[in-house]
Amino acid sequence: MNDTLSTCSVTFAPAERTVTVKKNSSLIQAARKAGLHINASCGGAGVCGKCRIIVEEGRVHGGESEKLSPKDFERGYRQACTTEIIEDVTVRIPEESGRQKGGLDTDIPPRHRARMHVFNIDDLKKEGLFDPPVEKLRLELIPPTATDNRADVGRLIQGLADQHNKHRLVTDLPVLRKIRRALREKDFLVTVTLELPVNNRSKCHLLNIQPGRWDHRNFGLAVDIGTTTIYGVLIDLHSGKVLAKASCYNPQMSYGEDVIARIIYAEKPKGLAMMQELVVDAINSLISDMLKQARLPDDDKSSPIDRDEINSITIAGNTTMTHLFLRLEPDNIRRSPYVPVSTFFPPMPAPDLGLELKRHCVALLYPAISSYVGGDIVAGVMGSGMYRTDLLTLFIDVGTNAEIVIGNKEWLACAACSAGPAFEGGGITHGVRAVEGAISDFSINPETLEPMNVTEGNKAPIGICGSGLLIIVATLFENGVINPDGKFNDLDTPRIRKGRSGMEYVLAWEDECGTDHDIVLNEVDIENFIRAKAAIFAGVSTLLEQVGLQVSDLEQIILAGGFGSFIDLDSAMTVGLLPEVDPDKIIYVGNGSLMGAWMSELSNHIRQDVVAVVRKMTSFELSEVPGFKDQYVASIFLPHTDLSLFPKVAERRTTEQR
Amino acid sequence: MNDTLSTCSVTFAPAERTVTVKKNSSLIQAARKAGLHINASCGGAGVCGKCRIIVEEGRVHGGESEKLSPKDFERGYRQACTTEIIEDVTVRIPEESGRQKGGLDTDIPPRHRARMHVFNIDDLKKEGLFDPPVEKLRLELIPPTATDNRADVGRLIQGLADQHNKHRLVTDLPVLRKIRRALREKDFLVTVTLELPVNNRSKCHLLNIQPGRWDHRNFGLAVDIGTTTIYGVLIDLHSGKVLAKASCYNPQMSYGEDVIARIIYAEKPKGLAMMQELVVDAINSLISDMLKQARLPDDDKSSPIDRDEINSITIAGNTTMTHLFLRLEPDNIRRSPYVPVSTFFPPMPAPDLGLELKRHCVALLYPAISSYVGGDIVAGVMGSGMYRTDLLTLFIDVGTNAEIVIGNKEWLACAACSAGPAFEGGGITHGVRAVEGAISDFSINPETLEPMNVTEGNKAPIGICGSGLLIIVATLFENGVINPDGKFNDLDTPRIRKGRSGMEYVLAWEDECGTDHDIVLNEVDIENFIRAKAAIFAGVSTLLEQVGLQVSDLEQIILAGGFGSFIDLDSAMTVGLLPEVDPDKIIYVGNGSLMGAWMSELSNHIRQDVVAVVRKMTSFELSEVPGFKDQYVASIFLPHTDLSLFPKVAERRTTEQR
Repeated sequence: MNDTLSTCSVTFAPAERTVTVKKNSSLIQAARKAGLHINASCGGAGVCGKCRIIVEEGRVHGGESEKLSPKDFERGYRQACTTEIIEDVTVRIPEESGRQKGGLDTDIPPRHRARMHVFNIDDLKKEGLFDPPVEKLRLELIPPTATDNRADVGRLIQGLADQHNKHRLVTDLPVLRKIRRALREKDFLVTVTLELPVNNRSKCHLLNIQPGRWDHRNFGLAVDIGTTTIYGVLIDLHSGKVLAKASCYNPQMSYGEDVIARIIYAEKPKGLAMMQELVVDAINSLISDMLKQARLPDDDKSSPIDRDEINSITIAGNTTMTHLFLRLEPDNIRRSPYVPVSTFFPPMPAPDLGLELKRHCVALLYPAISSYVGGDIVAGVMGSGMYRTDLLTLFIDVGTNAEIVIGNKEWLACAACSAGPAFEGGGITHGVRAVEGAISDFSINPETLEPMNVTEGNKAPIGICGSGLLIIVATLFENGVINPDGKFNDLDTPRIRKGRSGMEYVLAWEDECGTDHDIVLNEVDIENFIRAKAAIFAGVSTLLEQVGLQVSDLEQIILAGGFGSFIDLDSAMTVGLLPEVDPDKIIYVGNGSLMGAWMSELSNHIRQDVVAVVRKMTSFELSEVPGFKDQYVASIFLPHTDLSLFPKVAERRTTEQR
Repeated sequence: MNDTLSTCSVTFAPAERTVTVKKNSSLIQAARKAGLHINASCGGAGVCGKCRIIVEEGRVHGGESEKLSPKDFERGYRQACTTEIIEDVTVRIPEESGRQKGGLDTDIPPRHRARMHVFNIDDLKKEGLFDPPVEKLRLELIPPTATDNRADVGRLIQGLADQHNKHRLVTDLPVLRKIRRALREKDFLVTVTLELPVNNRSKCHLLNIQPGRWDHRNFGLAVDIGTTTIYGVLIDLHSGKVLAKASCYNPQMSYGEDVIARIIYAEKPKGLAMMQELVVDAINSLISDMLKQARLPDDDKSSPIDRDEINSITIAGNTTMTHLFLRLEPDNIRRSPYVPVSTFFPPMPAPDLGLELKRHCVALLYPAISSYVGGDIVAGVMGSGMYRTDLLTLFIDVGTNAEIVIGNKEWLACAACSAGPAFEGGGITHGVRAVEGAISDFSINPETLEPMNVTEGNKAPIGICGSGLLIIVATLFENGVINPDGKFNDLDTPRIRKGRSGMEYVLAWEDECGTDHDIVLNEVDIENFIRAKAAIFAGVSTLLEQVGLQVSDLEQIILAGGFGSFIDLDSAMTVGLLPEVDPDKIIYVGNGSLMGAWMSELSNHIRQDVVAVVRKMTSFELSEVPGFKDQYVASIFLPHTDLSLFPKVAERRTTEQR
């Protein structure tokens, strides 16, 4: 059993609130989860000494500090930020560490994370959707006689029709050349590999033939080519089970962090070929890794899987990643009017792409919608099941660009919003990626305006990552530190001061930090954040307006991508990034791109549906939609100029004002 | 004007029979054509001196001989065999040179050759069948704008739908990679190359894209891979015109004359690869030759044709030739139960076959029916138009194997008969191929039984070729020299004698020959001939019997292949090789295989029909059909045991007996 997966319960007094956290979490993280504030601006570095708590029951690790007297330590005092939870405990937050008036305030809402949508092969089977696009079928044929001397290929085709109801086959010369020997090696018992038709007007593709019985050995790969990370899954297509997973950085990263930088590199002489080689080599390494890991429980113990036994690979990625992988010139993707070379890609033999797989392995690429709504988003729509729900759903993947899809099984509309890098920690004075020391969670003492910074890895803070930024802005706004314009109110605290870019809030002082300066959030940062969230919200509103609907009609929100997994729903609705819906109606799908590729590997039904989904999806170029500008302007407030769209925020503000 | 193509008329006295012959023909050939006999056993070597004639009007070349006195020469006497016709002449055959009693007998029928079926592109156009399977289409597209930023490929596909009504396209990666540049080089004016669908459930294949206007430059090849000779035609697919023709020996000949020998060679290590290379190299040479020859009359004078501009190649050949060309193991073709690897072959990029053509050139292979009814026969059925006639037709290609197809546009049945090599001059004591000196035509003086041998090239005889054998046997039979069993009657002439293989007829004495022995035809030769013709006739009868018809129901006969072009119809019906039909109902198509390939190059309608024709055609394995043996036994007589099938022969025999 993996020790890091065990959990402990933490009960906070005097609020009597209990939460379950992973073993080895810090007490700060537990308090955050419980919706409780502990003053803590050093984020776990143990420097500020403000987060003293008392352990009343159970044992903990750490929590010592120079600022704690041995006597206090003995009485159970600890520094919350450096205290590790190792078993069930009860902890008291003294008044000086928590909120200073009226004890613990219960109106700080607990942080909402979206419910995770977990893919399950058994569900797919129950729905009758388990039919991998590449099938292996065993055939027992009757050897030729004088009265039945059809050609070998004719015999095979008739056998597939009679024994498996497969009709209308095509094949190519290399397979034709194998048939004669394959039939005769095991006395006309053979196994064929078939790519099923992608629609009912297409043909079955005979990919391979093997002598003897091999229909139980059929393996496939699903790969997501992310701009940052490449993920792969090796799947047993016979059982539907996952045999191995692997991931690695996209090595193109060294030549540019975002898609635009990659496109620019690809425009250099040999740049495109190099971009392709990098990603192909990376995928080849992943495949080797997964083959090394994978063992199939077999009758005769476990057996390794041979590269030859991989018969299909489904690949999803954004439009730029797909172009680079296929060595299609991507330059028009970055130039107005943003025209990709292609959005549909034919099935092709995997070795034609440089993949170290056999010719009988077919590579299937997820189709895209446009330059900025790529195969990763289409895959997400498939993997999340959005394409077959009755509920009016918003699918959203927030990154440098936010891709938005709205609709249900009847119709789909999509657009890409240029959100800028704020949600990835870019374009913010002290923004960082979600690395160790990044402030990723936050609360504030509404009286003293002292912060509780929660950092990645409980390290001294070095900056603010995207998910932290969202929570900080929402918290400052909720607590009246900033107004709907994103400007600081005139409050009397050393935490708020005039900086080089307008007023700023000091999250952590230099001596508490892992940096050589104070960590602040200033008005320009907040403006950048508001512009980013406004672009997304305006995108959603505009798409809905185009189909005659309103934000309030949304019944479900699906979050995809890295940002979606960390997003705090309450904050997102407080600032007006996401429409206000019941948090239970929000689902997180994680890497939707990988999930979609994976499901297509398992289900030809789904692969067939992809084509229909892409045909159905109406793409909007937001800058060309007349209403978008107005929607954007209306959205550059916290949460929005039209407070009726955010009834809960409106209610809280009304309560405050009373 | 090509001088060898001019003709002269020759009038023979006293019969007052006039024939038209090619300039430079010999007088013997003219007499043969007129159905007149001139004693001439040396076949044109000018040795026997028996063929004296008198030129009464007009000039001739040659005809001198030691055996002619200068006085006779002055009086117009010439040796017919060495006399070349150079203008219109009148010639008298003296009694001693012709038939000796009763002057010239008019009951020797003039030799019938089948009417040639000539392929005509204009007819194809009139019938609305001119639609090459590979088309070039010009597209003028509107460049992308902010409100229309579809992918390049999407724009192209929409353009093809809007401007050319082409739907459902597929393409591959190399073409996808060219599209972006091609569109932009000439401001979105492009020419695409499309392979049309082979049926209405298939897709259009986008083979190539070129910037600018190139729809008038589209070229294709038709190739017939014969066992002996390879023929090629280079076609302008825009106009339908032939630009060049070429042929060469099939270099596999050095490794075996017939298909069985080739298969045996292919079974050796590396034998198959070598067989493939030989034929591929030969085709590559033909292509180079044709490209060198071809000039296209263009607006700006004539322009050469580039290899890149060849977009399709249609290839037909028998099943063994096709297997060797595709490097498919042919060994089961020669072993009972005679199973080929495949009878259908997918379209493929020409370079995959080793052809020195571009990837956008698609190679289309004629499908076969069985091991011994190959793509050459299917092509013949297409090229001759048999597949769309109402007439009950017999299609026959006589060689070592005779392939027979019977039917019309409603139904088709086929079989292969193992005729043996007699019709190719093999298996006969003094049999030779149709080379110079081969006796290819013959008549006999019914009184003296003296022969008139006509040889290829008017050279001294060296043996008997297939078409000569047929005429000799028919003539000997018609003149009562041999009986219906093929045995010699007891006649008093030095020409008939006992030899090592039964009785024999001396066609030419050693001193008249180009060999060191008399040239004879013996009873074993005649038996071999009868067996060969019996196999074919029994095949025809059996096929007809299988569909409930009789020989007398036949309305048309189509002859294909080399033998068919020289076959004397009267002889063929006299000996019972062909059923007795009105000679006007017999058509010769020459190289039906090449013609079929050529027509498929010009007409996707016809290519589509090929698939239907092959599906429709019922193949019979004659040895497995119960009635075949009986039919064969009934056929090993001259012409047949059932004389009611040959009413004209029966009538002549009755007349004789009276």
